[in-house]
Amino acid sequence: MIKLLTALFVFVLISTGVGAENGHKLWLRANSTIPVEVRCSKKSPTIDIAINELKNGWQGKAGQLIELKIVKDKLLKDDGFRINGATIQAKTDAGLLYGAFEILRRQHAGESIAEEIVNPSYNLRILNHWDNLDGSVERGYAGRSIFWRGIDSLEVTSGDLNLWKEYARANASVGINATVLNNVNASPSVLTTPVLERAKAVADVLRPCGIKTYLAVNFASPEVIGGLETADPFDPAVKAWWKEKVKEIYTLIPDFGGFLVKANSEGQPGPQNFGRNHADGANMMAEALEPYNGIVMWRAFVYDPSDEDRAKQAYNEFMPLDGQFHDNVIIQVKNGPIDFQPREPFSPLFGAMKKTTVMPELQVTMEYHGQSVHLVFLATMWEEFLKSETWQEGAGSTVARCTDGSIFNQKYSAIAGVANIGLDTNWCGHDFAQANWYAFGRQAWDHSISSAQIADEWLKLTFGPQNIDKETSSYDLEWNLSFLQPVKQMMLNSHEATVNYMMPLGLHHIFSAHAHYGPGPWWAPRGMRADWTPPYYHQADSLGIGFDRTALGSDAISQYHEPLAGQLADLNTCPEAYLLWFHHVSWDHKMKSNRTLWNELCYRYDEGVKQVREFQRVWDKAERFVDAERFAAVQHKLTEQGMNAQEWKDACLLYFQQFSKQPIPYELERPLFNLDELLERDRQRVRRSR
Amino acid sequence: MIKLLTALFVFVLISTGVGAENGHKLWLRANSTIPVEVRCSKKSPTIDIAINELKNGWQGKAGQLIELKIVKDKLLKDDGFRINGATIQAKTDAGLLYGAFEILRRQHAGESIAEEIVNPSYNLRILNHWDNLDGSVERGYAGRSIFWRGIDSLEVTSGDLNLWKEYARANASVGINATVLNNVNASPSVLTTPVLERAKAVADVLRPCGIKTYLAVNFASPEVIGGLETADPFDPAVKAWWKEKVKEIYTLIPDFGGFLVKANSEGQPGPQNFGRNHADGANMMAEALEPYNGIVMWRAFVYDPSDEDRAKQAYNEFMPLDGQFHDNVIIQVKNGPIDFQPREPFSPLFGAMKKTTVMPELQVTMEYHGQSVHLVFLATMWEEFLKSETWQEGAGSTVARCTDGSIFNQKYSAIAGVANIGLDTNWCGHDFAQANWYAFGRQAWDHSISSAQIADEWLKLTFGPQNIDKETSSYDLEWNLSFLQPVKQMMLNSHEATVNYMMPLGLHHIFSAHAHYGPGPWWAPRGMRADWTPPYYHQADSLGIGFDRTALGSDAISQYHEPLAGQLADLNTCPEAYLLWFHHVSWDHKMKSNRTLWNELCYRYDEGVKQVREFQRVWDKAERFVDAERFAAVQHKLTEQGMNAQEWKDACLLYFQQFSKQPIPYELERPLFNLDELLERDRQRVRRSR
Repeated sequence: MIKLLTALFVFVLISTGVGAENGHKLWLRANSTIPVEVRCSKKSPTIDIAINELKNGWQGKAGQLIELKIVKDKLLKDDGFRINGATIQAKTDAGLLYGAFEILRRQHAGESIAEEIVNPSYNLRILNHWDNLDGSVERGYAGRSIFWRGIDSLEVTSGDLNLWKEYARANASVGINATVLNNVNASPSVLTTPVLERAKAVADVLRPCGIKTYLAVNFASPEVIGGLETADPFDPAVKAWWKEKVKEIYTLIPDFGGFLVKANSEGQPGPQNFGRNHADGANMMAEALEPYNGIVMWRAFVYDPSDEDRAKQAYNEFMPLDGQFHDNVIIQVKNGPIDFQPREPFSPLFGAMKKTTVMPELQVTMEYHGQSVHLVFLATMWEEFLKSETWQEGAGSTVARCTDGSIFNQKYSAIAGVANIGLDTNWCGHDFAQANWYAFGRQAWDHSISSAQIADEWLKLTFGPQNIDKETSSYDLEWNLSFLQPVKQMMLNSHEATVNYMMPLGLHHIFSAHAHYGPGPWWAPRGMRADWTPPYYHQADSLGIGFDRTALGSDAISQYHEPLAGQLADLNTCPEAYLLWFHHVSWDHKMKSNRTLWNELCYRYDEGVKQVREFQRVWDKAERFVDAERFAAVQHKLTEQGMNAQEWKDACLLYFQQFSKQPIPYELERPLFNLDELLERDRQRVRRSR
Repeated sequence: MIKLLTALFVFVLISTGVGAENGHKLWLRANSTIPVEVRCSKKSPTIDIAINELKNGWQGKAGQLIELKIVKDKLLKDDGFRINGATIQAKTDAGLLYGAFEILRRQHAGESIAEEIVNPSYNLRILNHWDNLDGSVERGYAGRSIFWRGIDSLEVTSGDLNLWKEYARANASVGINATVLNNVNASPSVLTTPVLERAKAVADVLRPCGIKTYLAVNFASPEVIGGLETADPFDPAVKAWWKEKVKEIYTLIPDFGGFLVKANSEGQPGPQNFGRNHADGANMMAEALEPYNGIVMWRAFVYDPSDEDRAKQAYNEFMPLDGQFHDNVIIQVKNGPIDFQPREPFSPLFGAMKKTTVMPELQVTMEYHGQSVHLVFLATMWEEFLKSETWQEGAGSTVARCTDGSIFNQKYSAIAGVANIGLDTNWCGHDFAQANWYAFGRQAWDHSISSAQIADEWLKLTFGPQNIDKETSSYDLEWNLSFLQPVKQMMLNSHEATVNYMMPLGLHHIFSAHAHYGPGPWWAPRGMRADWTPPYYHQADSLGIGFDRTALGSDAISQYHEPLAGQLADLNTCPEAYLLWFHHVSWDHKMKSNRTLWNELCYRYDEGVKQVREFQRVWDKAERFVDAERFAAVQHKLTEQGMNAQEWKDACLLYFQQFSKQPIPYELERPLFNLDELLERDRQRVRRSR
């Protein structure tokens, strides 16, 4: 009887345990017991990790011998590597580690491994954590900071060390080699010694995985924590303070990467406070860092409540400084000219600053894309951005090539992603948000990779059956047809869906003032600075909608290079995806679909809602292929996303209808919300969020 | 300049006034200036009204002479009448008034007027107002009471008189000839002299329109306001008290109609408090009223928290008393055996009490049908009910014929509707709720009339163009095709839609505890009496869903007459509309559609949501035919109804899915709400409503 009960108990444990996953293992779930032998003549903590990864994850021929070799090879760039089934060659230890992860990924994704050289597109592939020292994360939707929990709680626990190690491994597995530990809205305290000591502890854990540590710094630090009277970059005491501080940092962290600076932007102090310009400020810091090969990443995200179109201001401010920055300064430019909107045209600074290193800043955390609720695979948006043609040096001058060093002579090439990582068990809040962390790493490594390839890999690694056919490394046909293909298509459609139900046709910045979540095209409280209100951006009136950025309007189009500028300026050639970004367009304007603009707008919003409903169906149908915990979590969020999409559609159409005075086309589904109800909800949310 | 401004001012007044209607005129909007001559040899306030109505509303031949005649005619019943294009004949003044309204309605609806006798189906066509003396209205969704505003505010204003006159006219226009001024949960104070004096003032206004006044009384009145020690119906002092009170009433209101009594039901006092039965109580009052030809309407809505199925209790209680009631007692029975649910089978008392007058009680106010928000035309439900076959006296023993006196020998025939009227400008809260007041009157007058006919009339009168072609009295083809037909179809489908999205397939009583609005299939707080909780009624479990009322269950089916009882008892012959009312059915039971029960349930809920969405479309398309005010009001409510339908669907499917453990068929739209969110909403609403 006891035996029977025990048997039953074991059975229950097994059957409820089957398939339960909480997402903490990310895309690194696979384990293997297939024996493999790994040898390397060199020994280092990084190489040890590479060897261990191969031993724990090997899914190739049993008993295979793998050789890791540090080599001199002109075809290898930075941490690039050469692989085949039996060897990994690289110039650096990190290169061997990346090679090991590449082989394992291909095995687990069922891809072939031929002799091949794999080089990174950018030297510096960096995550920006917007983590505050108090443990909160600005625009973070996955729990509190993994690095900080308050300046009174700086001691390092074994839990911290474990988590940072997992974090470092995940980054290394996709080629991320740098991280900024704190928010760009930086507390001066980050440069105090106790905080730096904790940063050193992080750096020590990240280092073996090939990851360098950076800090975001406050320009006023010399005054605030240094006790100086000024932070003027021309002041000798200020310069000396920064040099001394940098020296202190390098004593603690010998391979420290450098500083990230948000200056004279949204209330942050900067060189302009002292009558100096951005180059003056950045170069002063660059001088301090230069002896240690440290760099300064200086953000171009600047705008004032002036009469000038906000979309033009960064260009206006930085272009005159082109050529004035030291070669260890990199100007960090957000992908679009406003602020991480669901869809933006690329910032005109890309390719335009020819004598300055410019790096793209992507937002992995989804401030404007539905945060931790909406399923949005951002790789397609980043791919669209990276492959955008700037024409700055003729055909082929894509944003990617204007920033990777292949066109302009530059000491560094870099790309940053604002991290979406927190203490949530699954790291990113939404199980599918892990795909964006993954995709950022993959695209930073290889900016020519397709989003479809990334989605394919990620799904196999993250949701694939644990034991694939060892002979062929291939996936079951049913899994492929009934899970992988539809779910991959959902991911690939997800960004466009979000654009459709939030801000189609080039609309932007029409979100609620409440935490940048949900619709708020109406939001414009009395006295609020105009460039923080949606009506500034959508400009809806009885005639039409959209921001006129032609020569008759703000002329922002002139910041782009021909022939693009001409194409954008002409209503007939401007891509419809950006139509209302660049033009104020009549409600009755005939679109390519042959619909009027108003009707097209209705169709796009409606399409977005339908797309999410389709995602819900796709996911529900995938139920039998997914563990219960992650299935339910994603299903719950998709349902919420469906309702949010409806809210966006109804809010925007009912609000804009007050201007267009036209009916929503009768063939479309009618609103589920009334406008007054949506306005009241928004008012309450804004009130509560204060 | 002054002239121009004046002209402009007038223009503005006219143009904003065009088509603006607030619904206050109900279905009596039409005015006419076509001259008509009306003569009657007799003079009375009622006949004066008839003449005036004809003069103000005539749309026939100009200068026509109409003669009104009081006649003796065996073919005429009660207030029936004989009409043709030139004369109205009736036995009573009220008959002439009804004849006048009939002619006008036909003219305005573009129908022919041949020589015809039109008799009422029921003698007594009575509204029950659930108005409290403090001015609130129980289950009222159209503002406060038109009759009461508190016992400290009993004086009659000119505003009161005007409103009561409009109310009386509206009732007369559809043949309603009686009204109960106060709630069945009656305050004893209604029988105090100051209150009776206000009732007299109402009665004086209603009388010329042929309407008799009734009061709902509290069985404990002799104790509470009479100062007696008891209200025992066998107590001589109690009997005397009631006789004296009745006498007082008739002194004030010589044509007073009688009492409506809710006794020993939901906490109301009654004869059972003194060991007497319902007949004892009703007969005691009937004796007091008998000398004045007054009647007692005694409600059969009784149930206790016993082990017995609530659906059986009224029958169990009243059947043994059949034959014991005086002939001026009418047992008022709700259409179904539970409580005005979206769909119920008819109460088994209809036709079963062969020696007692039984009257149906319909609920015009929409306690369980979405209150003042949902558009639900109840005529189809009432038609279904009235035409239900009881088999009590063989084929053709419909509920209508079992109550109209054509089968059973009875002194009175009556039908009651719980009014949906309040101080809202449009009387009923929802513009389309007016149609239910209208329909109640029309069906009470003629229980064979089709719902389609009623909808057709009502739409023409309520939304029709004010000036129809005077020659042909016909409506414009476009109006007919693009407004009348689709909107009528919407009305005719609306009840089924509500059943679909609330409680399809015989589900019942699964609403939220919050004000009987919204879904609450889960609601069963600890300690709550079971027969007030939804799980008592839906009985969902891992095997199936539904209340077993077969012989293996509560055996409520045995209260029905054969062959109906046999038909209901057999899972294969029980109409699917009542399936879960009478059976606990396996989730996998194969339905007529060939779907499983679970899938069918999903389809029904989904269909309900789709139907409301279609209603929204129909109404939006009707925009150009409707004045702006009523268009917007109805559109707003339809949108809310759409969201409510979604909430019902998602709540019920997600809740029941916990028992069925089956997916919602993938071809159906997925939920927009998560269950946890709906549960939380419901908790908050219930909390707030306390």
